[in-house]
Amino acid sequence: MPAHQQRISLVLQQRLPKQNTIAAARLSEAMRYATLNGGKRLRAMLVYATGEAFNADPEALDAAACAVEMIHAYSLVHDDMPMMDDDDLRRGKPTCHKAYDEATALLVGDALQTLAFESLTDNNLPADQQIAMVKYLAHASGVMGMAGGQAIDLASVGKQLDQSELEAMHLLKTGALIKASVMLGVYCSSNYKPADLSHLDQYAAAIGLAFQVQDDVLDVIADTVTLGKQQGADIARNKPTYPALMGLKAAQQKAQALVDEALAALDNIDSQCLAMRALANFVVQRSF
Amino acid sequence: MPAHQQRISLVLQQRLPKQNTIAAARLSEAMRYATLNGGKRLRAMLVYATGEAFNADPEALDAAACAVEMIHAYSLVHDDMPMMDDDDLRRGKPTCHKAYDEATALLVGDALQTLAFESLTDNNLPADQQIAMVKYLAHASGVMGMAGGQAIDLASVGKQLDQSELEAMHLLKTGALIKASVMLGVYCSSNYKPADLSHLDQYAAAIGLAFQVQDDVLDVIADTVTLGKQQGADIARNKPTYPALMGLKAAQQKAQALVDEALAALDNIDSQCLAMRALANFVVQRSF
Repeated sequence: MPAHQQRISLVLQQRLPKQNTIAAARLSEAMRYATLNGGKRLRAMLVYATGEAFNADPEALDAAACAVEMIHAYSLVHDDMPMMDDDDLRRGKPTCHKAYDEATALLVGDALQTLAFESLTDNNLPADQQIAMVKYLAHASGVMGMAGGQAIDLASVGKQLDQSELEAMHLLKTGALIKASVMLGVYCSSNYKPADLSHLDQYAAAIGLAFQVQDDVLDVIADTVTLGKQQGADIARNKPTYPALMGLKAAQQKAQALVDEALAALDNIDSQCLAMRALANFVVQRSF
Repeated sequence: MPAHQQRISLVLQQRLPKQNTIAAARLSEAMRYATLNGGKRLRAMLVYATGEAFNADPEALDAAACAVEMIHAYSLVHDDMPMMDDDDLRRGKPTCHKAYDEATALLVGDALQTLAFESLTDNNLPADQQIAMVKYLAHASGVMGMAGGQAIDLASVGKQLDQSELEAMHLLKTGALIKASVMLGVYCSSNYKPADLSHLDQYAAAIGLAFQVQDDVLDVIADTVTLGKQQGADIARNKPTYPALMGLKAAQQKAQALVDEALAALDNIDSQCLAMRALANFVVQRSF
């Protein structure tokens, strides 16, 4: 996994615009600031881990990993803005609109999204595999996926969601892109069986939800420095969370049960999926 | 051309999310509000006009026309927001963030961009033609194209740009997407010669710039009702414009000279390109 983390940082640096080569220098610099900031890179690691389990071409995986990280980075930049979550800190540093300005942050998110799709067309895969990735990623990040989930999240602040409503929201808001990371990883390969896709879908859905439950848990138990963002921010905003809904202990148990479910889904796949198993465990063992 | 305008309205309606089919109902409604508002549809008409000159598949043209109109609509929604141009009126109606709210407008732009790329994967063209379109559109709308142009525009408010700097900015801000509209139209076909692409590129570059010069002219001579947005807004913001730089009359002559250049480029193409010629003339004859 550390090798994957190093690799994604390197390939992101290569694919992001160089500040000195284009006229929109400030925008390029801000795009690099927002993307190259030492995130967990869970989504990139899912691409690599899944792709390697199916012997995918490493350079195609680079392109796919960059794409999901760019979509993720764009969503964080826009989500942090004043009219959304109004956050000052992200990964321990000033958020993009604080380090630059709101207009630049808006354009950073816009241009990162575009660059994600450009990245999927800039690799050695056959066109039909590239198109499968563009199609999946677009669906997963748009109104029927991530952006739709954010809209539901916005509408739910201060409301009492029950557990199934909360899950439906997270399935879109964070789950869709996590699932896309797994699916783009396998789409970089041509060595999978149709049945593998549904096992991967199960794996991805379970860790996507586990990730969100653990996020809510960390908002309660971690401190601001470790978290790199304001601890207790969700509670302060009266956002619905799993610990608030079911208690802290039950939420922690739920996260572990979801990871077990993810691991069980991988038992049905011929490959050992070692890196994918490690990532599933990382989702609940992480402290930030 | 009216047939193309009707057609793009119809296919946009089909491809935009239905309010009653998904959870993010308010976002879907706002996406429809921002897109289905009776714009000029110049970009869609360029797709159809170019595609028809090369006998492209009409349904593929629908997908490409939707994509460029969605990118255009997203850019207007974000451009109108308070941290950018802070406009209240767009095409005679409240701008998206006025009719809804800023958070929704942010997501509307984000999700429209995504839907544009999804649209390019949802048609009957072979995968290599779809990928050519995704690649071109992504490059044209990102940091090296439209978004980069907006960043330069932002940085230039209140500054004295000379004519070549102004042109470089517009080449990206509006020119890149207008050029993409023409190129996506021809990419929907497989009946073109390599040399045609450079003539089309010349045509598109000339009408893209003509369009912008005419926009600046209209900002001076049209009234707010005809324009559907605040007349004199560019001058009030101290934005650099062609009439300010070279005088009104010279700006009008420049727009016409560019149209003549666009028409001359079409003389090199086997097809008569009648609809493309009509559009070139429309660019300077329009009053809104």
